[in-house]
Amino acid sequence: MNFADRISEYRSRIDAALDRWLPNPEAKPSKLHEALRYSVLGGGKRVRPLLVYATGEALDLDPVQLDPIAVAVEVIHAYSLVHDDLPAMDDDKLRRGRATTHIAFDEATAILVGDALQSLAYYVLAADSAYDSTPEIRGRLIRCLAEAIGSTGMAGGQLMDLEAEGTELNPEELEDLYSRKTGRLIRASIMMPCHCRFDTTEQEFDRLDQFARMVGLAFQVKDDVLDVEGSTEVIGKPQGSDIKNGKATYPSIAGLEGAKARAEDLYNDAMSHLGHVGNDTESLRWLTAYIVQRNH
Amino acid sequence: MNFADRISEYRSRIDAALDRWLPNPEAKPSKLHEALRYSVLGGGKRVRPLLVYATGEALDLDPVQLDPIAVAVEVIHAYSLVHDDLPAMDDDKLRRGRATTHIAFDEATAILVGDALQSLAYYVLAADSAYDSTPEIRGRLIRCLAEAIGSTGMAGGQLMDLEAEGTELNPEELEDLYSRKTGRLIRASIMMPCHCRFDTTEQEFDRLDQFARMVGLAFQVKDDVLDVEGSTEVIGKPQGSDIKNGKATYPSIAGLEGAKARAEDLYNDAMSHLGHVGNDTESLRWLTAYIVQRNH
Repeated sequence: MNFADRISEYRSRIDAALDRWLPNPEAKPSKLHEALRYSVLGGGKRVRPLLVYATGEALDLDPVQLDPIAVAVEVIHAYSLVHDDLPAMDDDKLRRGRATTHIAFDEATAILVGDALQSLAYYVLAADSAYDSTPEIRGRLIRCLAEAIGSTGMAGGQLMDLEAEGTELNPEELEDLYSRKTGRLIRASIMMPCHCRFDTTEQEFDRLDQFARMVGLAFQVKDDVLDVEGSTEVIGKPQGSDIKNGKATYPSIAGLEGAKARAEDLYNDAMSHLGHVGNDTESLRWLTAYIVQRNH
Repeated sequence: MNFADRISEYRSRIDAALDRWLPNPEAKPSKLHEALRYSVLGGGKRVRPLLVYATGEALDLDPVQLDPIAVAVEVIHAYSLVHDDLPAMDDDKLRRGRATTHIAFDEATAILVGDALQSLAYYVLAADSAYDSTPEIRGRLIRCLAEAIGSTGMAGGQLMDLEAEGTELNPEELEDLYSRKTGRLIRASIMMPCHCRFDTTEQEFDRLDQFARMVGLAFQVKDDVLDVEGSTEVIGKPQGSDIKNGKATYPSIAGLEGAKARAEDLYNDAMSHLGHVGNDTESLRWLTAYIVQRNH
């Protein structure tokens, strides 16, 4: 199967799993459940679930065991977008070419959508019974996710991002911010499958973690490049919106060519760590190339 | 030891445990970590942790095993207050006699405080190593909590509360709303200790669950009564603030005396279920009486 077919198969798989886990829109309170579905099922590249499944291939894991992980990282990602888009945060009205949740519904509903999605992620990890993961593995997964998205991880990164508006950051500070805001959840998407095995060697674990760090950072640097180069139609949000918000971005501190070069370096670094990992890393390599070379 | 001493001992215990688990304010990003501590350590009756420890007494559990549960329910409670107080929600400026988090810091920080506290609760349940809870028990606890606070529980209850503003509810609808918004987390505070035992009979579990439902509802009805009767100085928020917001409350639909009678009925119902539970239910009885008879 070629890469495009494999990606499309995994995207159908994650969309079906999300649909299974999201509460029925008729369940009370239906406004919240409609808004949950609007926020999660409205498109998106599903990069984090794809990383989960591709890492699972490299580690020879059953996709059925990976479904709850893929659902968890995607609903966490959706929650972070809904909250980041709020007027008190980035105040974005457009996302994936559609009205953001607080515009399509209202601000209070958007706050509660994010809150409920975060609970749902942990619920899925703790409650999924399709695959008989040991309680020990479930505990590791929950710990890994909670650490990644908490105050020193994703939530902290968003605060640092807001604090950085209108200030000058050096590349090191910006990479620290990115590694939290975007990097930690992407890293968790790769490391959570790794926690499903009991026979991973420490060296394999470290290699994959290095790879995961590089991919997480590369993803955000590439996003910055697209924010400068892409059109609204292709990237789904107003072109240049980060610059408009006075945010420090990689191109703004290192120039567009500097940012492109950094993304390329991160890609090469990431790839160099994969040689020592698992069996079939083909999908993981394809996906990493896609992340750095995508045009939206 | 009398009840007042026992409550005071448990309050010191939970405050010490919260202090241990909340990230150091010097950890990056320090603004967020200061705001986390401000939101969690700024007083509060600690009713939910007290219910955890009192239920633990009835079930003969080691308090060391209960600490992570007490921390989890209290940080979830704190997160819910911080988000409920936001301008887009109840728009409250005063809480526990102090400025609410979005006033003391800013709105974006308050949103992220709630988000990070939710992650922290799950992290504590998954990562606490002071007591050797089996992974099986940790999984049950996380599942119980996530279900209680998600879209059909606490988060859904808050949405129903906002939707009910300016509308007429009947007592049944109001009790459904309350059982979600306040009741589910209080119920989880009682049922999570129950999940720590493998030898609870189905009958004991059901009795305790009935007790927990009644206590959760009684707590909110009593809160409504206090909102009418209490002064700002004693209850820590402007007296009558719920009525001012156009919210349906128990006194507004059943009269003040009706609300008091309902709280008393719920109290008696709750107590009737305790006869069949565990060993030493003295603290749990005291605490239930305190919840219904408190003046703040």
